[in-house]
Amino acid sequence: MRVLMTGFDPFGGESVNPSWEAAVGVAEALPDAAARRLPVVFGAAGAALREAVAEVRPALVVCLGQAGGRAELSVERVAVNVDDASIADNAGARPVDEPVVPGGPAAYFSGLPVKACVAASRAAGVPAAVSQSAGTFVCNHVFYRLMHLAATEGPGLRGGFVHVPYAPGQVADGSRGPSMEVASMVRGVAAMIAAACGTPAGTDLRAPGGAVS
Amino acid sequence: MRVLMTGFDPFGGESVNPSWEAAVGVAEALPDAAARRLPVVFGAAGAALREAVAEVRPALVVCLGQAGGRAELSVERVAVNVDDASIADNAGARPVDEPVVPGGPAAYFSGLPVKACVAASRAAGVPAAVSQSAGTFVCNHVFYRLMHLAATEGPGLRGGFVHVPYAPGQVADGSRGPSMEVASMVRGVAAMIAAACGTPAGTDLRAPGGAVS
Amino acid sequence: MRVLMTGFDPFGGESVNPSWEAAVGVAEALPDAAARRLPVVFGAAGAALREAVAEVRPALVVCLGQAGGRAELSVERVAVNVDDASIADNAGARPVDEPVVPGGPAAYFSGLPVKACVAASRAAGVPAAVSQSAGTFVCNHVFYRLMHLAATEGPGLRGGFVHVPYAPGQVADGSRGPSMEVASMVRGVAAMIAAACGTPAGTDLRAPGGAVS
Amino acid sequence: MRVLMTGFDPFGGESVNPSWEAAVGVAEALPDAAARRLPVVFGAAGAALREAVAEVRPALVVCLGQAGGRAELSVERVAVNVDDASIADNAGARPVDEPVVPGGPAAYFSGLPVKACVAASRAAGVPAAVSQSAGTFVCNHVFYRLMHLAATEGPGLRGGFVHVPYAPGQVADGSRGPSMEVASMVRGVAAMIAAACGTPAGTDLRAPGGAVS
Repeated sequence: MRVLMTGFDPFGGESVNPSWEAAVGVAEALPDAAARRLPVVFGAAGAALREAVAEVRPALVVCLGQAGGRAELSVERVAVNVDDASIADNAGARPVDEPVVPGGPAAYFSGLPVKACVAASRAAGVPAAVSQSAGTFVCNHVFYRLMHLAATEGPGLRGGFVHVPYAPGQVADGSRGPSMEVASMVRGVAAMIAAACGTPAGTDLRAPGGAVS
Repeated sequence: MRVLMTGFDPFGGESVNPSWEAAVGVAEALPDAAARRLPVVFGAAGAALREAVAEVRPALVVCLGQAGGRAELSVERVAVNVDDASIADNAGARPVDEPVVPGGPAAYFSGLPVKACVAASRAAGVPAAVSQSAGTFVCNHVFYRLMHLAATEGPGLRGGFVHVPYAPGQVADGSRGPSMEVASMVRGVAAMIAAACGTPAGTDLRAPGGAVS
Repeated sequence: MRVLMTGFDPFGGESVNPSWEAAVGVAEALPDAAARRLPVVFGAAGAALREAVAEVRPALVVCLGQAGGRAELSVERVAVNVDDASIADNAGARPVDEPVVPGGPAAYFSGLPVKACVAASRAAGVPAAVSQSAGTFVCNHVFYRLMHLAATEGPGLRGGFVHVPYAPGQVADGSRGPSMEVASMVRGVAAMIAAACGTPAGTDLRAPGGAVS
Repeated sequence: MRVLMTGFDPFGGESVNPSWEAAVGVAEALPDAAARRLPVVFGAAGAALREAVAEVRPALVVCLGQAGGRAELSVERVAVNVDDASIADNAGARPVDEPVVPGGPAAYFSGLPVKACVAASRAAGVPAAVSQSAGTFVCNHVFYRLMHLAATEGPGLRGGFVHVPYAPGQVADGSRGPSMEVASMVRGVAAMIAAACGTPAGTDLRAPGGAVS
């Protein structure tokens, strides 16, 4: 199965973005995969994703993004049709409460079997959990664009979004919380992809992964 | 404007639920309002909400729920069409990845002006924030049912969901995190309702309230 | 029993310091108490405490300080002989690894019955816990100076330190964590003082209040 | 310089203790080092440490312990003369407010140059920070026993305590917070030991590492 991995440019004052390092690492570990790096820019990120899909023609797309502060791989459950930027993107834009796709539905569920992905990563020894929100910044924007593409133009296209923690070097000053080695991210995401390939579309492992609030 | 406030029964081992105490407090402070207590039971909670709406015939519905661990009033932005229980509800049910409403859309946005509500509570000195996820338990279930009701049967019905922190008495042993006095909850939610009444439906204050991830 | 309460000036960009508001509130609620406000300045804060003790001649001294980020009243167990400032004090000083009192012991235990104080606050419905560290800023400086004074010059002088959370108005923008109403702080600290008065010096309630790490 | 590394048995329901794995890894990486495993038992842990010191005759002792929930290597600044167990030790004991060493001083500062150790770990890319409290469980007990031994019987003996996070496998279910690869722990602690060997006893790097509260 041809796989497209995406990661992002650094943003928010960081000099690296582990999502891109992990995307490259996963693509290198798979027999038929490509990695593309997306700008942290509303609009442009979605356009770059669309071009990458047109070029690579993948059966599976897994977009990665950095979620500073999280301790585990976060398999996102739902993409929401809103851009609401608490910080500026890399082009200086700060949209507030604008739709990702005007007229699009309020949300799309991930095309990944999120529970099977979480279970596969854990079985590989890499902390993972279902996440109920991908935020409202460029990560969610790309996630929504991906799912909208799959829903409107991409019969047979599956995909979803996974947030990764900071890499250790980003938090080495010891006051910025959890981190994960990029090699662990690669191992966990590769296990997720194997699980996704082995799970028929539209089905998933039946395992709890919700949040009370 | 006739207002319906709802709160919940205690759950999760608690003997009180501050959402109910706050709902009563807000209803008593308003000239034309009623409060109804909902069971923490998937399905039954939605049915009880529906009955309350039919009986009270409100123009505005604000459902409150307890979000243990949060420090501020959380105005929920989006209701998602999934039940995924990490703990059992009060009837012992633990649905996993079932739709709240089969065939319903993936999500509904709140009918409240969430930014105006947050600003109003803060102006009243009560900590508040937009929340990007109402979880996947009975709170989200009721929120989704409310928005579905408004979308399908309730022309002119507005409403939304606000999570409240633990009350101090619930965390008095000092190891369970943030809390808020019920009187503060009442003051904050009352300010939100005034803001909602003063904001034309479909509009909102333009203020950032998003999350990066 | 004559009681001296102390609180601090605002610091760290805040316009209020709830420790001072709470100290005043407690002093007003007691039959024979005075409140003094200390500068957030290394050295000067200790000198001001010493003057206040000389003037008020208390049998019991309870110093309060603001601990932004904590959710409950924190009864400090131990004062450590080190100044290590991660931010500048209100006079612009940032001492690093200097002793509070040159030649003093590494630490002093609180003169309060910390377990009885915690239990009394909880019984009054106010979240409280033992804290294993008062930090290394001006709060710990004052705490150490108080205990050193009691150990070297103050036969019969009892006292200790309690950290209080932010007041709600300080975190009303909803992104700065837990808070507590000043009235609750007053109720909790007053209960602690009653407990201290009812507990013979050198004894305490036998109740766990430790931390694994 | 002969180095003694110690780690602990698993406790608190865990099947591994990364402090022991890291201690072994560091000892293997050094030219003249030994590793000893201590029981998580008040009293017995201190006795085992004393025996290990008598047998190995080290110039430097670095004791490691697991601090679940922390995100970085925590170089402990101060050992406090109190046992206060919030959970039972591996022998079922739960001492409350008992001295580690009856008649001993309230606290000892670490014999490690804590700032130089933190800086060295960070320079090696491994998140690290000064910690103001080692807790009141068996880790602090061993730390205090070590410093008491150095103060009373061990002229020339230097040492201190470093807490390590959970290993990833311990939190793979994704709901238990931060973790760190054991290989990173080894790299960070080895860098600390090199820094300690290069820093004259009684001196340290001048760098802030305090806490406001």
